[in-house]
Amino acid sequence: MAVYTHLTTEELAEFVAHYAVGALRSAKGIAEGVSNSNWLIETAGGRFILTIYETRTDREGLPFFLGLLDHLAEKGGPVPRVIHDRDGAAFRRIHDKPAALIEYLPGVAPDRPDPAQAHAVGAALARLHRDAVDFGGTRRNTMDLPEWRRLLSGCGADGLDRIDPALESLVEPELTALERDWPSGLPRGIIHADLFPDNVLMLGDEVTGMIDFYFACEDLLAYDFAITHAAWAFDKGGGFRPEIAAALAQGYQSQREFARAEKNALPMLGRGAALRFVATRAWDWLHTPADAVVTRKNPMDFARRLAFYRDAGEEAFAL
Amino acid sequence: MAVYTHLTTEELAEFVAHYAVGALRSAKGIAEGVSNSNWLIETAGGRFILTIYETRTDREGLPFFLGLLDHLAEKGGPVPRVIHDRDGAAFRRIHDKPAALIEYLPGVAPDRPDPAQAHAVGAALARLHRDAVDFGGTRRNTMDLPEWRRLLSGCGADGLDRIDPALESLVEPELTALERDWPSGLPRGIIHADLFPDNVLMLGDEVTGMIDFYFACEDLLAYDFAITHAAWAFDKGGGFRPEIAAALAQGYQSQREFARAEKNALPMLGRGAALRFVATRAWDWLHTPADAVVTRKNPMDFARRLAFYRDAGEEAFAL
Repeated sequence: MAVYTHLTTEELAEFVAHYAVGALRSAKGIAEGVSNSNWLIETAGGRFILTIYETRTDREGLPFFLGLLDHLAEKGGPVPRVIHDRDGAAFRRIHDKPAALIEYLPGVAPDRPDPAQAHAVGAALARLHRDAVDFGGTRRNTMDLPEWRRLLSGCGADGLDRIDPALESLVEPELTALERDWPSGLPRGIIHADLFPDNVLMLGDEVTGMIDFYFACEDLLAYDFAITHAAWAFDKGGGFRPEIAAALAQGYQSQREFARAEKNALPMLGRGAALRFVATRAWDWLHTPADAVVTRKNPMDFARRLAFYRDAGEEAFAL
Repeated sequence: MAVYTHLTTEELAEFVAHYAVGALRSAKGIAEGVSNSNWLIETAGGRFILTIYETRTDREGLPFFLGLLDHLAEKGGPVPRVIHDRDGAAFRRIHDKPAALIEYLPGVAPDRPDPAQAHAVGAALARLHRDAVDFGGTRRNTMDLPEWRRLLSGCGADGLDRIDPALESLVEPELTALERDWPSGLPRGIIHADLFPDNVLMLGDEVTGMIDFYFACEDLLAYDFAITHAAWAFDKGGGFRPEIAAALAQGYQSQREFARAEKNALPMLGRGAALRFVATRAWDWLHTPADAVVTRKNPMDFARRLAFYRDAGEEAFAL
């Protein structure tokens, strides 16, 4: 949580003047997101989030990410609209970095979702998969299985050992199994790929906004469900919450029925989803100074989920 | 800029439920203030700033600071109202720290004020001095001249040398002169004591909010003007802006005429105001790790202003 780029009031006002939103009335740097700098902006025309994309975001992907928001918002989905500037551009540049003005949406991230909330999130995810079918853009998943292998190799066996003595012996056989058995031939489409509770705004049981599409890409739809499952169906202590898993699946299938092959693949996809976050978090853990501004996320949370998926098999999904 | 205390959505909602402001709709941690943790909160009833007072704030002073805001807001001054909880309390506790809910005000801090803005700020400061006359509370200035001596002694001569080889020889004679010649017998009252542009919200030429009263205390009214002068009447490069100095004085005197003795004392008070910030910033500079989350402010900015006031005498104030 940080604001990496400092902007003066004058720079903020000058940026906002490129949009038909009226004059700047307020701007507060917000301590959210680990990758980008964000301001909550008020103008005569409403409230907005100004995001400056720092180097950790795939800037090449911005036309895809922002075009996808436009497309999903157009379909009435719960995502923020992108405000286009007076020339119609979805993003501009400040301090030689890309920057976008995005609709502010109310809602708070649920700490400990209840089944009704999980049902709504499952449904919102399936709707996103449906609504994106006729979106023209595409983007390769740069955080795919070969990338997990690269990230984990980049940690070195001693790096993983330093995190936890059990990590290497958990991860290596899983990686090998996933490389051997990763499913192919399942339905593909545009996926969010990072739908953690932090990235969902809710008011009560209603999803008011899905945000942070900066890992969105084309991949297996059921893998997106598996990521969401891994992100939502465990409590803070790591315990599995079967009632949340069930509600996510019911919500999802209220909007899009899984194919039989997808159901069969979910246990493997769950292991993949967990390993994906073990890989990125382990790499960050070893490559981020302990006293950095960014809070490192302990990779062991997802290592425990990985072991759970490996051992639970289809029980984790109960479809 | 940081959020020092982490609060879950549930904790935020529970806190807000103690106030008659409706249910929580949004909460964003804001990257402002070097001392406290702040959230911009939206509820069904409006928008608010939630502040958690961290250890750098004088927590004993909170009834005074918040009572002063109540008093000034009651008089119609441009300060945020304090929202009282359902039991009438001005602050509560979260994570064993005091926390208050304060009205959100629009406006942005001016980067490079123009004379009309400086006039408005001078007038707002004088109005604050007037409006506070019948405020019942009081608080000793804990950041007074003896404290500057203590802070600078705590830096050690070698500490000041490490900041800049010229600093010790500038500061020591000034401190001695101020201890000898600091004025007494001037009008006293409640002062803001920290009215930097960061602490003033403006829309155009209008002051919409004076904020951060956490150094407010009883002291010489003209000293508060001298602090404001030192904080506003220089450009980012350190150059004196006589047109701003004149506008501040005209604005102030549009609401409250200086006594002759105050005018005579201002050159000495300007040196004191500059030295006060040299002292606190030098101490922070030496006692804050270079890689800390908090941005250290270079004490040399105010050392240069100190030398300016010493050399310019009454020219700085042109009264």
